[in-house]
Amino acid sequence: MKKEVAIGIDIGGTNTDFGLVDREGHCLVKKSLKTNGTNNVEKFLDELCKDLKNAIAEFDEKIDIKGIGIGAPNGNFFTGKIEFAPNLKWQGVIPLVKLVEERMQLPAVLTNDANAAAYGEIIYGAAKGMKDFIVITLGTGLGSGIVINGDMVYGHDGFAGELGHTVVVLDGRKCGCGKNGCLEAYASATGIVRTLIEMLDDREENSTLRKIEKSKLTSKDIFLAAKAGDTLALEAFEITGKYLGIKLADAISFSSPEAIILFGGLARAGEYIFNPTKKYMEEYLLPIFRNKVKLLPSKLDKDNAAVLGAAAMVWKHIVKV
Amino acid sequence: MKKEVAIGIDIGGTNTDFGLVDREGHCLVKKSLKTNGTNNVEKFLDELCKDLKNAIAEFDEKIDIKGIGIGAPNGNFFTGKIEFAPNLKWQGVIPLVKLVEERMQLPAVLTNDANAAAYGEIIYGAAKGMKDFIVITLGTGLGSGIVINGDMVYGHDGFAGELGHTVVVLDGRKCGCGKNGCLEAYASATGIVRTLIEMLDDREENSTLRKIEKSKLTSKDIFLAAKAGDTLALEAFEITGKYLGIKLADAISFSSPEAIILFGGLARAGEYIFNPTKKYMEEYLLPIFRNKVKLLPSKLDKDNAAVLGAAAMVWKHIVKV
Repeated sequence: MKKEVAIGIDIGGTNTDFGLVDREGHCLVKKSLKTNGTNNVEKFLDELCKDLKNAIAEFDEKIDIKGIGIGAPNGNFFTGKIEFAPNLKWQGVIPLVKLVEERMQLPAVLTNDANAAAYGEIIYGAAKGMKDFIVITLGTGLGSGIVINGDMVYGHDGFAGELGHTVVVLDGRKCGCGKNGCLEAYASATGIVRTLIEMLDDREENSTLRKIEKSKLTSKDIFLAAKAGDTLALEAFEITGKYLGIKLADAISFSSPEAIILFGGLARAGEYIFNPTKKYMEEYLLPIFRNKVKLLPSKLDKDNAAVLGAAAMVWKHIVKV
Repeated sequence: MKKEVAIGIDIGGTNTDFGLVDREGHCLVKKSLKTNGTNNVEKFLDELCKDLKNAIAEFDEKIDIKGIGIGAPNGNFFTGKIEFAPNLKWQGVIPLVKLVEERMQLPAVLTNDANAAAYGEIIYGAAKGMKDFIVITLGTGLGSGIVINGDMVYGHDGFAGELGHTVVVLDGRKCGCGKNGCLEAYASATGIVRTLIEMLDDREENSTLRKIEKSKLTSKDIFLAAKAGDTLALEAFEITGKYLGIKLADAISFSSPEAIILFGGLARAGEYIFNPTKKYMEEYLLPIFRNKVKLLPSKLDKDNAAVLGAAAMVWKHIVKV
């Protein structure tokens, strides 16, 4: 019998990862392509699909490909289009599902990267068997995928789940979206760097992070400094976790999930981010919700997480297991 | 043919309203009973059901009663129980559905008052035909009923939809729930009174509201003063709408609804509350959501709104039209 396989494609601002994933979440093959190598989306997809077909050919006749799941910034599940993604070179509205289906002759589905992560957790990861959970992706920005009663929340227009752009500090920091005080401006890899830089400017304490040029500081530097006991780095995690915890409490009041799953680079700082987040989340919760909601790390293999998430959509929406 | 009818029961802290409602939303009869007349729930229900049976008897054999919908504080849809309602005399966990079904020999469903309002809007009111909307009840407190993809959001434990207890001012006003800075402490009938009293204390301007004893000030007094052009009253509405608008923007980022419906006493202040709420909601929204989400007044007849909401559950969950 042939092995049933899904294609997962994760389109990021810089790179696009794609691969073949089986029902158990094994990534049979994974490849990569520069997303920003061309601003012609048709040319980009020609190359991507050529690479994909080559990868498939290597498996000869041993696999049965059920469909294609695609995660992309501003990917709209309802329309199958990428709509005005600020960090992609392709401008305007891109009918991605149609363009991919034409080239691959396989059914395709599209959603944004954070929703894809949530599909990954429900099919392969920490949310197996759960009907109500939220995935928070802590990368350059803060994304969220919300599952209620077993279904992804898309809302009226397909754009639900933008917790990164809810307000945590009234008239606070400028956010990339143009508003002020958004959660993403505080709780993300770039947010914690901004917090740390503010502390370096305002405070006198010694910190190993003072040796790094400010424009080159990364959240990983802060993580390593925190592990080494650096006071300012530890405090930056505390502040980041506070803001994140407050807004997770808000999210719980909204949909009362079984669990919240933290995904992405900053989430891999482990206890440094989980401990303060959990503490403030509980503190800001209505008593009826306290000590009920699990705060969990992603269970997806980090190297393949985005491809797994995109592929997971195939089992949810095309094969419909 | 007999007329199909639903029984709606709205249990409030002071009064319980109940009535018979047909499919078109006509309230055939409505009666009332003191909720806090006894702290024995069985005795209370004996009386309520006796009154109900008398009301039914008057319609002779002309009606076909399909079931009973009940809205009550802390009413849990999943368990059919009222769980630790702070403003009811009956303590602990009350198996209300079971107690009512035993007495009436009819199927019953329970939810909280804000969710009942949302059922009312979807079956009889402003949300007819909508699949994604949020009802905000602006009474003594602030409740919310959230509908996503045609279904009420109950969450993992049945207690989802507590937008009144999300934080709008970090470390702000003490809320009745024990936390600080909750939306309910600002955007509710009691919230606007607190805002106005703070203004009377801090400011020098003349205001007709200075003539009213502070402990007796109501949101209606503030509404009447605003209508008469009182500066402080107008500003109190502006502040209330600001906080409400900010949190409605948050809610839109979460579930991207087609509409948000304002329900209850304070919502009847019309443009005085709608204008600032709409203004700040749009200002705090992510650009992709702007000018898309309708902010609507409830369309339920205010005298029967709570009974209509409770009765509407019967068509949604018992008859399943």
